[in-house]
Amino acid sequence: MEFIDGGVTAPQGFYANGIRSGIKASRTKEDTALVVSQIPCVAAGVFTKNLVKAETVKLTRKRIENHRAQAFIVNVGYANACTGEEGAKVALREAKAAKEALVRFAQNGSVLEDGQKPQWQNLEEDDVFVCSTGVIGQQVPVQIIEDHIDELASGLSKKGHEKARIAIMTTDTKYKECAVRTTIGGKTVTIGTMAKGSGMIHINMGTMLGFITTDCAINAEMLEKALRSSIEGTYNCVSVDGDTSTNDTLVILANGLAGNEEITGPGADFDAFLEALNALNTKIARKIAADGEGAEHLLECTVTGAKDTETARALAKSVISSSLVKAAFFGKDANWGRILCAMGYSGQFFSPEKCSVSFKSAASGGMMVKVCDHGADVAFDEDKAKILLSEEEVNILIELEDGNASGTAWGCDLTYEYVKINGDYRT
Amino acid sequence: MEFIDGGVTAPQGFYANGIRSGIKASRTKEDTALVVSQIPCVAAGVFTKNLVKAETVKLTRKRIENHRAQAFIVNVGYANACTGEEGAKVALREAKAAKEALVRFAQNGSVLEDGQKPQWQNLEEDDVFVCSTGVIGQQVPVQIIEDHIDELASGLSKKGHEKARIAIMTTDTKYKECAVRTTIGGKTVTIGTMAKGSGMIHINMGTMLGFITTDCAINAEMLEKALRSSIEGTYNCVSVDGDTSTNDTLVILANGLAGNEEITGPGADFDAFLEALNALNTKIARKIAADGEGAEHLLECTVTGAKDTETARALAKSVISSSLVKAAFFGKDANWGRILCAMGYSGQFFSPEKCSVSFKSAASGGMMVKVCDHGADVAFDEDKAKILLSEEEVNILIELEDGNASGTAWGCDLTYEYVKINGDYRT
Repeated sequence: MEFIDGGVTAPQGFYANGIRSGIKASRTKEDTALVVSQIPCVAAGVFTKNLVKAETVKLTRKRIENHRAQAFIVNVGYANACTGEEGAKVALREAKAAKEALVRFAQNGSVLEDGQKPQWQNLEEDDVFVCSTGVIGQQVPVQIIEDHIDELASGLSKKGHEKARIAIMTTDTKYKECAVRTTIGGKTVTIGTMAKGSGMIHINMGTMLGFITTDCAINAEMLEKALRSSIEGTYNCVSVDGDTSTNDTLVILANGLAGNEEITGPGADFDAFLEALNALNTKIARKIAADGEGAEHLLECTVTGAKDTETARALAKSVISSSLVKAAFFGKDANWGRILCAMGYSGQFFSPEKCSVSFKSAASGGMMVKVCDHGADVAFDEDKAKILLSEEEVNILIELEDGNASGTAWGCDLTYEYVKINGDYRT
Repeated sequence: MEFIDGGVTAPQGFYANGIRSGIKASRTKEDTALVVSQIPCVAAGVFTKNLVKAETVKLTRKRIENHRAQAFIVNVGYANACTGEEGAKVALREAKAAKEALVRFAQNGSVLEDGQKPQWQNLEEDDVFVCSTGVIGQQVPVQIIEDHIDELASGLSKKGHEKARIAIMTTDTKYKECAVRTTIGGKTVTIGTMAKGSGMIHINMGTMLGFITTDCAINAEMLEKALRSSIEGTYNCVSVDGDTSTNDTLVILANGLAGNEEITGPGADFDAFLEALNALNTKIARKIAADGEGAEHLLECTVTGAKDTETARALAKSVISSSLVKAAFFGKDANWGRILCAMGYSGQFFSPEKCSVSFKSAASGGMMVKVCDHGADVAFDEDKAKILLSEEEVNILIELEDGNASGTAWGCDLTYEYVKINGDYRT
């Protein structure tokens, strides 16, 4: 398995584009993205557990029930949540516009930029998903998207992932995409992804908007299984601010063009697919935490010596979710007491008197500073700690001496900038 | 029932003092407080649910098991949490020093400033509680307290609440005390309190350190019942930052000197006592939220039309705990979508499409602005909203149209100052 350049168009048969339609007057970059597969895909998805769900989430959840999809359109600027019946109609219109433009483009006899002919003449409307992200409670000005939909569809290309990944960004300061390549059943299989997510991110589901494409041949049951298994240790271990959004969506589309024998059950092929998917999702989960609103440091907390993985992950999540821990890291303050405090209210059992905490550098050759030994203070070099805590990535290592399981969670520090960004987002 | 001036010494038979012992070199105000009752009291307490508990919490919890207490000593600067066996010894030494100084003072034949003779010659060591608050993981320099303990004990007076209330402050910018007077069984009963709490405050228990004194005659069972009942709608409805501290303690001492017939069961007397206690605790809960670290606004969220009180309170708590809601109020931004979002992940059921949200002014004659009507956007006067959101106290009213129950929670906005305070607290 290896990481390769590219994103959602890295697997065979996927094309993407992003344009600036102008739905948000103040936005100067792309605001709408479209991704399509040459042939219908097996699809799986996970969605926000928030009781208040965006209209686009409701629609996509319904459409994914038959485990089939071929294209998705994404707009930023408006969440299409708390928008009532009108919002539901808007979501339908957005999907319909995408479907009709795709069909028009294919029926025109147009040729794609790589010389391929588009094969989605018979695209079904139910196979188009729609995702929105932005302000809650305001209607998407869908007419503007409709006015620009042909521009969006006719610009689809393999290179289009570069525009699509920008079009889905909101407060993100960096785009988030990656791709991996692996071998399954003797065939080269590729998985690509793009995601957005910076604030309103918490560990109660595959936070944010995430889109995964693959040319792997895999049936619906195993695709669903792979997605759910993978998010537990990746997207569900990220927190920026403890707020679970109304729009969280993570979907995966598999078109089977890699030509491997279809994965229909557990075994070496499924394991290889899952390994690649985990690597991909871990990379994006880290990117989301590192690009948390206003963040100056990526915090990676690993709990070892736990009695099981669930305990280890729950403790690690509690640490990286604590406002006080996050503020301490912003201040480059080796305040380990807050780490134990956050573990203490996690709801998990552990023995504070067996617990040790170290900070480890991801940059300076793995330099380590132990700050708490068996639940108590230990003399440490404050200067060394300060250097380590000044680095972009800080690793928090916690040993419980309670078993052999481990778990990791990712977060970021709490900064003035976070408050600034969120103090005036809507206006 | 009426509010009166004063704090922990307002009830008959209680004396207090606070001194600067110098345990924290950088602190210029009082750092250690002592409160004592002329006679042994019936006592009840609630403590942090954090698995990591301060050594002083462990000691006080043990000592309160027999429902008796007569005095307590409080130090700031050090939490005495994660301090191991040495910390346990330090807590014992601190309580012992207080006990011995009190006995010495009484045996000396000293007279209190109000002409009363101290009656605690036979004070039992088990009847002295000890509470600490401050940095986790560092030992309390208890020798310094021991060196100043006679100064602390000999300065006890009715006016001493003015020094005690300062001595327990940490990042608090205002002291927190109040007292109420009511009539029970024809006798005047007084309840007084002082508390500290500004950060590391969450709704998982009677957050912070809180001390309540009363001259009411009430047995242990009913005192415990009153305390537990009262915190549900008061201290347990406050959040500053979602972090439950290792040191949370709320104790109540009742010495019976009011001379009312002892309350031993439910009835009018108990109801009158509970009403007074609720008024007292609500006032302090609001003060804690208003003085949340870095806070510029007190947020009071009231949910009405709920099917039961628990649901109403849980929804209100979720709203005032959300980092995004808190940051929006800092920015004076009427971003109601985040309020619905926070309700949506509360774990409680409600119908977003029946839910309406208004902001109400506590200052400008109850001016109200409805921002969300039945789950959807409503045109509102942004300028009017801005005026309202600029006030020191902002009331968020949420109507669910789902029943007749209501509940209130208190929080504060998330500011640059919160991040600053907590970015460099330890050093």
